[in-house]
Amino acid sequence: MAKKQTAAFQGERGAFSEEAARRLLGPEVTPVPCARFEDVLRSLVEKRVDAAILPIENTLHGSVHENYDHLQNFDVVITGETRIRIVHNLIALPGVKARQVRRVYSHPVALNQCLRFFTEHPEYEKHAHYDTAGSVKMLAEQQLRDAAAIASASAARIYGARILQRSIEDDRQNFTRFFLLRRPSDPRARRAKTARVTWKTSLVFTTRNVPGSLFRCLSAFALRDLNLAKIESRPLRGKPWEYLFYLDFLGHVEDPVVRNALSHLKEIAEWRLLGCYPQGT
Amino acid sequence: MAKKQTAAFQGERGAFSEEAARRLLGPEVTPVPCARFEDVLRSLVEKRVDAAILPIENTLHGSVHENYDHLQNFDVVITGETRIRIVHNLIALPGVKARQVRRVYSHPVALNQCLRFFTEHPEYEKHAHYDTAGSVKMLAEQQLRDAAAIASASAARIYGARILQRSIEDDRQNFTRFFLLRRPSDPRARRAKTARVTWKTSLVFTTRNVPGSLFRCLSAFALRDLNLAKIESRPLRGKPWEYLFYLDFLGHVEDPVVRNALSHLKEIAEWRLLGCYPQGT
Repeated sequence: MAKKQTAAFQGERGAFSEEAARRLLGPEVTPVPCARFEDVLRSLVEKRVDAAILPIENTLHGSVHENYDHLQNFDVVITGETRIRIVHNLIALPGVKARQVRRVYSHPVALNQCLRFFTEHPEYEKHAHYDTAGSVKMLAEQQLRDAAAIASASAARIYGARILQRSIEDDRQNFTRFFLLRRPSDPRARRAKTARVTWKTSLVFTTRNVPGSLFRCLSAFALRDLNLAKIESRPLRGKPWEYLFYLDFLGHVEDPVVRNALSHLKEIAEWRLLGCYPQGT
Repeated sequence: MAKKQTAAFQGERGAFSEEAARRLLGPEVTPVPCARFEDVLRSLVEKRVDAAILPIENTLHGSVHENYDHLQNFDVVITGETRIRIVHNLIALPGVKARQVRRVYSHPVALNQCLRFFTEHPEYEKHAHYDTAGSVKMLAEQQLRDAAAIASASAARIYGARILQRSIEDDRQNFTRFFLLRRPSDPRARRAKTARVTWKTSLVFTTRNVPGSLFRCLSAFALRDLNLAKIESRPLRGKPWEYLFYLDFLGHVEDPVVRNALSHLKEIAEWRLLGCYPQGT
């Protein structure tokens, strides 16, 4: 793993995507925050960064559909994945006590994932902010001493704030899966198969809209005992009520059985490989 | 079709959902606007309205995932569907000329669907509002004469405004599919099969997470030449990286072939019927 790689991600410093970047690229990665997912992909394609980190699904909310569309629209390759448990913490400036807090800032989704905490603390007023880590940044910038934020532990560290209460989220089964993306021309995008690793392959396909066509596409995998990890449908632009399918399955593109499955799929569908990468843990 | 039925929908009077309500229940329907989708379903379940209208997918943006989750969480039955073409119009108060307009209000999604119009009119400033029809309502309430809104033709009619320019959306392949929902106890929820109508059936299922299980579930339909219209996966709560599948297929639940398919599906999956209804046009 090369040192001092740059990785674009959406959100402020301290976002869960930054944690994913460190997990995927090592602690020396230089994080490059971007305002929008589209900017993340553009940064990668325009060679302003070495890699991009994209959340693709969450176990409570489902797929990040915008990012599935970006995988189709930008020329990028998935070269890794990781799963981060979303732990929400109550964070305030150093010296601020819980009883001083009146307002709690965070992204609306994070506020909604801590409803039990707010029921136990009716004295706290919820305030929606554009970003979880950004709400800690705001505490620091405005030196708010009657407010707290809900964000990751690393957001507290980055902005010099303190955790008042750890893990206040309602549901601990809250995980987000992130992709590590590279440019197709990047030599790091081509990773030879190594043993002792479970490989995953992602692709996108379209097929004719006739009875049984999706079934026949899946047969290319099922008849070869290849395990599907995920299927996602997205609308096909310009063809109302037809769909693109994104598929993740276990196996390496160089496995003979995977080659056969993909050549079988070619007979019945148009597909494009999105990447082949070690399964995340 | 009974007269003077009440139908809950999300949004302000003049929303596209209200147009769907008239299409599904006739022009005499009494529209009941609600702030959130959850309120729409709650109104129906708590018997405050006769029916509910829910957008379920759009040909540009894909499924309305929140509403798929509501179908699972509320005890309701799909009894009809319709597809509405989303036509965005530039709307202003009577007497206001296009050259007087400085600001244009609408929901961010609608603003983003009229980008060509804004490129052609750099003199207009885009302003995000919480609702398309609500932005016309605001023009009327605040008597704004230097502003316009982007909304449906019926929003213009309802709030006494005028259409300055029709159909300013970038993509005419912009359709939204709506469901008509009833309480299961409502006699109108049980619709006998009639000829000359194409019927559609919707269900939700879970299956064991083993290789080929989705393929085997789809075989119940494919092996009987039943045509799938839509498949949608959603995360299964409490079981990270496992999924619920929502399926729409053509056929009436009382067709012998559909009965056989559902009994076959029962052997390999747990499923629940969401509704059987005439295919929308």
